[in-house]
Amino acid sequence: MTATANYLAANKAFSASRPANQLPLPPSKQVLVLTCMDARILPEAALGLKEGEAHVVRNAGGRAPEALRSIVISQQLLATKEILVIQHTDCGMVTFTTDQARGLIAKNLNLSADSTGRKTLDQLEFLEFPEVENNVKADVEFLKKSELVDTNNITGYVYDVKSGALKQVA
Amino acid sequence: MTATANYLAANKAFSASRPANQLPLPPSKQVLVLTCMDARILPEAALGLKEGEAHVVRNAGGRAPEALRSIVISQQLLATKEILVIQHTDCGMVTFTTDQARGLIAKNLNLSADSTGRKTLDQLEFLEFPEVENNVKADVEFLKKSELVDTNNITGYVYDVKSGALKQVA
Repeated sequence: MTATANYLAANKAFSASRPANQLPLPPSKQVLVLTCMDARILPEAALGLKEGEAHVVRNAGGRAPEALRSIVISQQLLATKEILVIQHTDCGMVTFTTDQARGLIAKNLNLSADSTGRKTLDQLEFLEFPEVENNVKADVEFLKKSELVDTNNITGYVYDVKSGALKQVA
Repeated sequence: MTATANYLAANKAFSASRPANQLPLPPSKQVLVLTCMDARILPEAALGLKEGEAHVVRNAGGRAPEALRSIVISQQLLATKEILVIQHTDCGMVTFTTDQARGLIAKNLNLSADSTGRKTLDQLEFLEFPEVENNVKADVEFLKKSELVDTNNITGYVYDVKSGALKQVA
């Protein structure tokens, strides 16, 4: 049985046990959480997020520049007012550079130099960073400098994947 | 008290009640879930996701093109093998066009025509779509056509925000 099939079975049990509801589209707590895709981060559990409360945006590293579209939609069209930027200890994004990743992946996928895949790969910026705490500060600063973002309530944190605790750094 | 302060208090209780652990960085179930940032989607609850099992990527709409960087990192550097693309009913992304959003936001933020913010806004593609089921199919197809993506186990779903049930469409 694939992992996918197991998750689909879990969803059947979830929907069967859950009363139907009709929550509004805009988040009730007017919050957006930006964090990494890392499997060890469970935002619902770690923050006590309830259904309908907050937008959650996740990507590799929890990078703000890539999240700008989602943040603008969240604030300007769906009225959120607070942003938590949460990156974390032991993140894979500090372990490689874009050049290293491109070389490794081109080799693994056996991409010839003139293939479409190689061209896409050579344009893909991996958005890695050398150290997490400074990167949280830089990503918060990126948002605070954007004329498209409401900068009143943006804070930044490092999540400790061992202890489950947040440390505020920005 | 801000919503942020409430979530930080919840995190203190979470980390205090949780034994420290040391899970590996690669997801144990070798799965990546791509879904929308919508506040009514709780992937942990709706799929029974446990700590350390799966990457979760979320953005406005759950759009695959914007998630390509994260997906390549997940598969090529962290060995995931299955992808679930989950978009949902009542999504805000079907309610506007990029042109409409740009006009509304430029007015709301009072951006002058030659401002940096206006220039950034005019380059921002909102990645809206007219109908969710066809968009899930298109996003799954986008991934299956990419030479950078392992296409063996990619499936697509519409999540019903009222019932909490997934419907497979790709």
